[in-house]
Amino acid sequence: CNQTIGDQARARQNSLTKPQGSLGHLEELAIWLASWQGRDAPSVADAYCLVFAGNHGIAAKGVSAYPAEVTAQMVMNFEQGGAAINQLCRVSGAVLKVVALELDRPTDDLSQGPAMTAEDCARALQVGRDAVPETADILLLGEMGIGNSTSAAALSAACFGGAVKDWTGPGTGLDQSGLDYKINLIEQAMSCHDNMLTSPFEILRRLGGRELAAIAGAVICARERGIPVILDGYICTAAAAVLTTGATAALDHCQVAHLSREPGHRVLSEILGKRPILDLDMRLGEASGAAVALMVLQAAVAVHNGMATFAEAGVSEHD
Amino acid sequence: CNQTIGDQARARQNSLTKPQGSLGHLEELAIWLASWQGRDAPSVADAYCLVFAGNHGIAAKGVSAYPAEVTAQMVMNFEQGGAAINQLCRVSGAVLKVVALELDRPTDDLSQGPAMTAEDCARALQVGRDAVPETADILLLGEMGIGNSTSAAALSAACFGGAVKDWTGPGTGLDQSGLDYKINLIEQAMSCHDNMLTSPFEILRRLGGRELAAIAGAVICARERGIPVILDGYICTAAAAVLTTGATAALDHCQVAHLSREPGHRVLSEILGKRPILDLDMRLGEASGAAVALMVLQAAVAVHNGMATFAEAGVSEHD
Repeated sequence: CNQTIGDQARARQNSLTKPQGSLGHLEELAIWLASWQGRDAPSVADAYCLVFAGNHGIAAKGVSAYPAEVTAQMVMNFEQGGAAINQLCRVSGAVLKVVALELDRPTDDLSQGPAMTAEDCARALQVGRDAVPETADILLLGEMGIGNSTSAAALSAACFGGAVKDWTGPGTGLDQSGLDYKINLIEQAMSCHDNMLTSPFEILRRLGGRELAAIAGAVICARERGIPVILDGYICTAAAAVLTTGATAALDHCQVAHLSREPGHRVLSEILGKRPILDLDMRLGEASGAAVALMVLQAAVAVHNGMATFAEAGVSEHD
Repeated sequence: CNQTIGDQARARQNSLTKPQGSLGHLEELAIWLASWQGRDAPSVADAYCLVFAGNHGIAAKGVSAYPAEVTAQMVMNFEQGGAAINQLCRVSGAVLKVVALELDRPTDDLSQGPAMTAEDCARALQVGRDAVPETADILLLGEMGIGNSTSAAALSAACFGGAVKDWTGPGTGLDQSGLDYKINLIEQAMSCHDNMLTSPFEILRRLGGRELAAIAGAVICARERGIPVILDGYICTAAAAVLTTGATAALDHCQVAHLSREPGHRVLSEILGKRPILDLDMRLGEASGAAVALMVLQAAVAVHNGMATFAEAGVSEHD
C-alpha cells in the first residue's frame, strides 16, 4: 500500500467539482484502489474473476437444500456459460476462470474430524495461489460448493468466537428444522476441534474446504503481487477472514463486495472493519456480488480520473 | 404495467440455475423492468439521463454552503464534460442531456411567498415533459440547483407532514448553525403557505423550483410513454413524491437510485415504499446515483436474459 499515492488521491478527490465527500463510498474506493495499485490514476480495466469449487463431506449429512452433485453440475454450467457469474462477468467486463478442486474427492466430515489432511490443505492453498494472474488491476474471488456455508459458519466461530447459531444461516434455503440440525452439527465440530484451532492453517484444514483454502491462497498471492481483491459474500469473506487471525492487516488489500443475506455476514464484515459495497439481498455466491461490485468500482475510477477540478472548470468553491 | 409479463418474468427467475430468490434485489429489478417495459426480455441498453437545473430565490438567504452562481458554473461544467455525471454516464453508457431552466431568473423566496407563478410552474412542468425522449429503455433523472435541498425539505414536509427538522439536512455542507437557520426558514415557509398546499401543483408551485417541477413533468411523461424511471437522491425523489399526493401509484414506474446521506431521504423512501438500489453515502445530486444504479440494472438484465434454466443446464433442483 502506497500511503503517499493514497494521500495524493485524497487531495485530488477534494479538488474535484463536487462538495467534498459528496460521492461518499465512491471516493473511498478510488483512494483505496490508487493506494494499493500505487498509481495516481487507478484502473479496474483488467479485472479477473476466480471461482473455486470444492465438495464437502458434511454435505452427505444433509446440511444443504441441494444435493452434493450440484457442485459439479454448476461447474459444468459455468463452463457452458449459463450461470449468473457468466452473465455478470460479461456485463462487467471481467475475465472468468473457474477452478474445480478434486470434486470427486469430497473433504472429510468436519463435524467428526479434520476436513483435510495437511497435505490436502496445503495443496488447495497452492492451487489458489497458482490461479492468480501475474498482473491484473483487480481480482474478484468467489466459490461454489454444496455444504460450504456450514464450513463458513464454523470458520467464523473458530476465528471470532460467539454462538454458533449467530454464525449459521439457511444457505441455499434450509427450513428451520434444517437450520437447527446444521447448527447442531457445527456445534459438534467446534467441540471436536476445540483446542486444536491454533493457527490459520489449522482452522482452514480442520473446518474449511478445498475451495475455501484456495480463496485464502489467492488472497495471499494477490497481496504479494499488489493486486487489490473483491471478496464476494459470506463464504468467501469467512475463508479470507481466517488470515486475519494470523495478521490483523491481512485483508487490507480486500473489499467486501456485498452484504449477504446470510445472517453471519453483517457481523463478520463489522469485525473485519469492511463496509460491503452493495446491499442487494444476494446470497448466491460464485462471485456474483463481486462482479456487480466491480461495476461500482468502474464508476469510482471514472469519476476519480475524469472529473475536472474547481480550478479547471472555473467553479466557485465552498463559501 | 403489464402484470402478465411480470408474472412470466418471475416464473423465469424461479427457473434459472440458482436458489430461488438468491439474487435478491436484482431479481426484483428485472421483474419490475419487464413488467413496465412490457417485454419478456427487459433491456436498459437505451438509457437516457436528464439533469434539470434551476436557481432558487431562497439561495440569496444563504441556505447553501455554495454561492448561487455555482448552478450556472456547474451547467457549464456539464457541457464541457468535467462533472461527475459526465464520467458516470460515459461509464454506464447513458446519453446525457442537461436542461437549464431560466437560470438568470431565480424563483421567488419560498419562505415569503410562492416560489413560482402558476405560469412559471406550468412552463417548467412542460419543459420536463418535452425533455423526455419518445422512446428509451430507461430514464435517469437528476437535478442541479443551489438551494434546492431547502425546497426538497419543504416539499417533503408539505406532502407527508412531520417536523421540518426531520426533513432538513446539511445539503452541500452546512454547519450546525447554518442548518438551524435553514430549518427556521423552512418553518417560515410552512407557516406562510399553510392551508394553501391543496394540490400537487400548488405544492410544487409554492415550495418547489423550476428544475423540480421539470422532474415531476418528466416523471408524468415517462409514465405515459411506458418508460421506467430511476430517481436520483433526496431532492429528485422529493420532487417526484409530490405526485403521489394526487395519485398514490404515481411513482410505480420509478425506482430510487440510492439512499442519500441527506437524512430525510430514508424516511421519504420508506413512505414511498421504495428500496434504494444503492447505499454509498452519496449526496451530490446531478443524477450521479442514478447513473451508478443503471449499472446494477444492467447486471439484473444480463442475469435475467442470459442465464440457463435448471432444465437447460441439467442441474438438479432443490431437494
